[in-house]
Amino acid sequence: MKYYLGIDIGGTNIAFGIANENKKIIAKNSIKTNSTRHYDVIIEDMATNIIKFLESNKISLDDLVCIGIGVPGVIDKKTKIIKIASNLGWKNVDVSCDLKKYIDKDIYLTNDAEAATYGELIQAEGIKNMVMLTLGTGVGGGVIIDGEIFCGGDGVGFELGHLIHEPNGADCPCGNKGCVEMYVSASALVRFAKEKIDTSSQIFDMCNGDLTKIDGKIIFESAKNSDKHAIKTIETYIEHLAVVSFNAIMMYRPEVLMLGGGICEQKELLIDPLCKKVYKLLEPMGDIKNTKIVKASLGNDAGILGACFLKFNEEKSAQF
Amino acid sequence: MKYYLGIDIGGTNIAFGIANENKKIIAKNSIKTNSTRHYDVIIEDMATNIIKFLESNKISLDDLVCIGIGVPGVIDKKTKIIKIASNLGWKNVDVSCDLKKYIDKDIYLTNDAEAATYGELIQAEGIKNMVMLTLGTGVGGGVIIDGEIFCGGDGVGFELGHLIHEPNGADCPCGNKGCVEMYVSASALVRFAKEKIDTSSQIFDMCNGDLTKIDGKIIFESAKNSDKHAIKTIETYIEHLAVVSFNAIMMYRPEVLMLGGGICEQKELLIDPLCKKVYKLLEPMGDIKNTKIVKASLGNDAGILGACFLKFNEEKSAQF
Repeated sequence: MKYYLGIDIGGTNIAFGIANENKKIIAKNSIKTNSTRHYDVIIEDMATNIIKFLESNKISLDDLVCIGIGVPGVIDKKTKIIKIASNLGWKNVDVSCDLKKYIDKDIYLTNDAEAATYGELIQAEGIKNMVMLTLGTGVGGGVIIDGEIFCGGDGVGFELGHLIHEPNGADCPCGNKGCVEMYVSASALVRFAKEKIDTSSQIFDMCNGDLTKIDGKIIFESAKNSDKHAIKTIETYIEHLAVVSFNAIMMYRPEVLMLGGGICEQKELLIDPLCKKVYKLLEPMGDIKNTKIVKASLGNDAGILGACFLKFNEEKSAQF
Repeated sequence: MKYYLGIDIGGTNIAFGIANENKKIIAKNSIKTNSTRHYDVIIEDMATNIIKFLESNKISLDDLVCIGIGVPGVIDKKTKIIKIASNLGWKNVDVSCDLKKYIDKDIYLTNDAEAATYGELIQAEGIKNMVMLTLGTGVGGGVIIDGEIFCGGDGVGFELGHLIHEPNGADCPCGNKGCVEMYVSASALVRFAKEKIDTSSQIFDMCNGDLTKIDGKIIFESAKNSDKHAIKTIETYIEHLAVVSFNAIMMYRPEVLMLGGGICEQKELLIDPLCKKVYKLLEPMGDIKNTKIVKASLGNDAGILGACFLKFNEEKSAQF
């Protein structure tokens, strides 16, 4: 059996795992990133821990086909240099080259959102065209066309969360107004709930009057208990998410629009009514209604799994 | 010298032309479509006229490398069947096959907006990634990635004019609300001018009080004469076009965003201030500001030129 190592570098944790030839993760682990440490120290710590991890799982370097890494930053696809990874404070670093000093295997690199999208693609099996939107604090995304990570003309990839959804809309921390993530992130749902809330809403009770404690769970729980404000809040959110989903489908025409993030567990209250609205918007487009809307299934493992198999993306092999 | 024949089938005219190996159109002609005629009659008429046209230009079938056709409709890229071309009333027809009965050459087929985009790509030379938006009665568009017409996951191509620009915005004839073409078509500029117009505006004088006579020319002329309402109208239009342009750049990350349509001749009043606004929106995106915004240069010839060389698109040859 041959194995693949995938690393998902994040601002808080560096997660890594081993997948087998059947594309299943068989072991995983993580270390704290402690991103204030010097870059060289982080790489050394990561390498040392991965070597230990491989040993404890009795996997020799000979058993390892390759290593893949997902990084939260902008990567020059030609030189493999990470141009900028703001959350890590990295600028113009060559992680592949630096990790190779410790573990001498072929290393493949991509953006973390792309790695996660690729991971979900592998898990979904048989899909060749897919857009993923991850609805969390912000909105991340990735696009797969013909089985490959699609990075657009300049190969840098997409910031789907910063497309403008509502011209002259809500101020986004990025500096622009009305960005997608101001309307369809999980944080946006919470913002909608805070707007026009009054003390009669169950949401108010459930957070003990402390609006900073409102989260998705409270909102959906209240809606299940027929709280009008909660129901209206979710309706508003779905209106926006339907437009964003429709546009994502129109832009790339995928077979599957995959939605990730904890919020997507809400089938009856979110995903089902969303699908209805999106298909209604697609109706006038005649031919463009062949996209299935599904929820992502891998959670945090998506990044590791996708990273494991980046080799296949790079080699454009029709493996998946 | 070898020659290429390009046909641009439209609802009103069927235009065709011959290009030489240097990618220049050396002769062109057109016939009325008379789209109420039976499909077979149109094809026969088109074929007969093209044969005459080739003869009068002393080009034998042996000199002709191939034929390309742009059609205003949805084409199944695998079977080459035109699934629907509403303006022509065509459904499930095989133009390539039917034309071949009269002119026995290899025939390549694509959507007319894609053919026009490909034509502009050829003319631009050296560009490999491009988005084109044609601002006319509606908004058409095409996307080129890595020198090839990009048609998205299902290969059907894009309706960039029907992305939703303003959630819950103006009613679009397609049935949805807030479509891009309701805000950035030339018709949208005219609609904006009609809104809140009063008799003090020069626009009112120039159309002799008949608002149905307002067109882009009158609006830009009035703005040049410092008419406040005209200036405000154009400002509103540019605000919308800037967001649409920004989103188009974010979606596909092209080297060039090309804008077509007569309205784009307005450099000082439209293109220059537009560029300023788009680059301002791109600023927070850091790396994503490498797209040039240019106006299309071929006009109606774009569709013919693109059609001529569709063979190269299909064969993915790195010709352009």
